Amino acid sequence: MAEFSNIKALTFDVFGTVVDWRGTIIREGAEWGRAYGLDVDWAAFADAWRGRYDPAMARVRSGERPWTKLDVLHRENLDAVLEEFAITSLGEADIDHVNRVWHRLDPWPDAVAGLARLKTRYMLATLSNGNVAIMVGMARHAGLPWDAILGAEVAGAYKPEPKAYLSAADMLGVEASECMMVAAHNYDLIASSKHGFRTAFVNRPLEFGPGKAETPMADAGFDIITDDFGDLAARLGC
Amino acid sequence: MAEFSNIKALTFDVFGTVVDWRGTIIREGAEWGRAYGLDVDWAAFADAWRGRYDPAMARVRSGERPWTKLDVLHRENLDAVLEEFAITSLGEADIDHVNRVWHRLDPWPDAVAGLARLKTRYMLATLSNGNVAIMVGMARHAGLPWDAILGAEVAGAYKPEPKAYLSAADMLGVEASECMMVAAHNYDLIASSKHGFRTAFVNRPLEFGPGKAETPMADAGFDIITDDFGDLAARLGC
Repeated sequence: MAEFSNIKALTFDVFGTVVDWRGTIIREGAEWGRAYGLDVDWAAFADAWRGRYDPAMARVRSGERPWTKLDVLHRENLDAVLEEFAITSLGEADIDHVNRVWHRLDPWPDAVAGLARLKTRYMLATLSNGNVAIMVGMARHAGLPWDAILGAEVAGAYKPEPKAYLSAADMLGVEASECMMVAAHNYDLIASSKHGFRTAFVNRPLEFGPGKAETPMADAGFDIITDDFGDLAARLGC
Repeated sequence: MAEFSNIKALTFDVFGTVVDWRGTIIREGAEWGRAYGLDVDWAAFADAWRGRYDPAMARVRSGERPWTKLDVLHRENLDAVLEEFAITSLGEADIDHVNRVWHRLDPWPDAVAGLARLKTRYMLATLSNGNVAIMVGMARHAGLPWDAILGAEVAGAYKPEPKAYLSAADMLGVEASECMMVAAHNYDLIASSKHGFRTAFVNRPLEFGPGKAETPMADAGFDIITDDFGDLAARLGC
C-alpha cells in the first residue's frame, strides 16, 4: 500500500472492465428477439458489432474522418451488422433502442461495491472511449458512482492517443503519476503507463466469451494484477 | 408539470446557485486567521477576490489570453488580493490551501436533498465556469450527486459563450430544448435560453451578502422562479 500512497485518482476503462457489454447484448438480444420476432445468434451478433468498433475508431484517430462520438460509430456499425444478419424488420425507433444498449450495460458483479469502497479514498473517473451520454446513461442504469465522466469525448481523442490520458489527469488537477489506470486490456494500460500513469490490470475472463480471455502481458510491469474490484480496493488501502 | 414533460437534463450554475462561496470563505477565513495570525475582514476579502473573477474570465473570452482554467485565474486573483490586504506572511502551501477553498465550498441548506430528488427523474450536470477539479472536489466535500461534470473547462469556453451551453446539451445526448438551466443569475439564464434551454431562476438572497440580492428580471420569461431546490423538485414532478 505504501507504494501507492501518492495515488489520488483512479481512471477506468469501462467496456469490459466495469461492465459486461457482451453478456448484456446477449441478454437484451433475447428480449429484442421476442419483441421484434427475430431468430438470431445474439452472441455472434454481439461479437460482429464489437468487431467493427476498433476499425471505426481507427479512422477517427488517423484523421481520415473528423471527431465522431461513439454513439454515432455504434449506430453506423449496427446498421452494417443488421444488414449482415439480414435483419430488415426494425423501424428507426427500434434500431435506436438497440443502439442505446451501450447506455444500459450491466456491471460485473463486483463492480458497484468495489467502486463504492474505492471512492472513499480516491477520485474515480471514467477514461473510456464511450461518449458522455453513454457513460451517464450507464452510470444511472447500473449505479456507478463516478466523480467525473472524462475520456475520449471530453478529450476529443480516442484511446490510446496520449491526449485521452493526459487531459484526464490535467482536468482532475493531478499529475499523471498520481493516477492509476484500471483496465482489462493490455494496450490501454501500456499506453497510459507511457505517460506516467500507474496501472492495474483486472482479469475479466468472460469479456469476449468463454475461452477468449485477455491475460496480462508478463513483461509489462503492471503495478497490480487482480481478479475483481474488491481485491483492488483492499490492495489500495480501502 | 406537463409543460416540462420533455425535459431530460438539468444543468446547474454552481457558485452561488448550489454552494455558498461567500459564506464559506468567511467561515474558513476565521480559521486561516487563527492558523496564520491574520486580522482580516473576511467578508471584504471574499468580495475583493470575487470582484476579480469576471474581469479575469473576460480576458479569456475576448481572446486576449488563451484558455486558462479557473483554478489558475483564482490563484492570480488571490495573489493580487493578498497584496491588496497586505498579507505577506503566507507560504506557498498556505496560499495553495486558501486558493483551494473553491474546492471545499459548502452547499446551501436545501441543495443536497433537492438534488437527490431531482436526480430520480433527470440527468444532473454542472454547467459552471469552475474547472473539473473544483467541481469534483466540491462534490466530494459536499455530497453533490452530479451525473456529469460539464461546463467551461470541458467546453473550452466560459459562460456566457454559446459553446458552454451547446456542448453540454450535445454531450448529454439531448436537444437544448430538453435541458433546463438552473441558476441564481439573470445573465446565465438569458444566455442559455437564447440557445433553446428552459430556465429556472433560484433566489439566493445572501449570495453576495445581506441587501445585495440578485432578483429575477421581470421580462425575461423564466419558466420557473423559486426559492429552493426542494420546491424546484416538486414543480418538476419529483
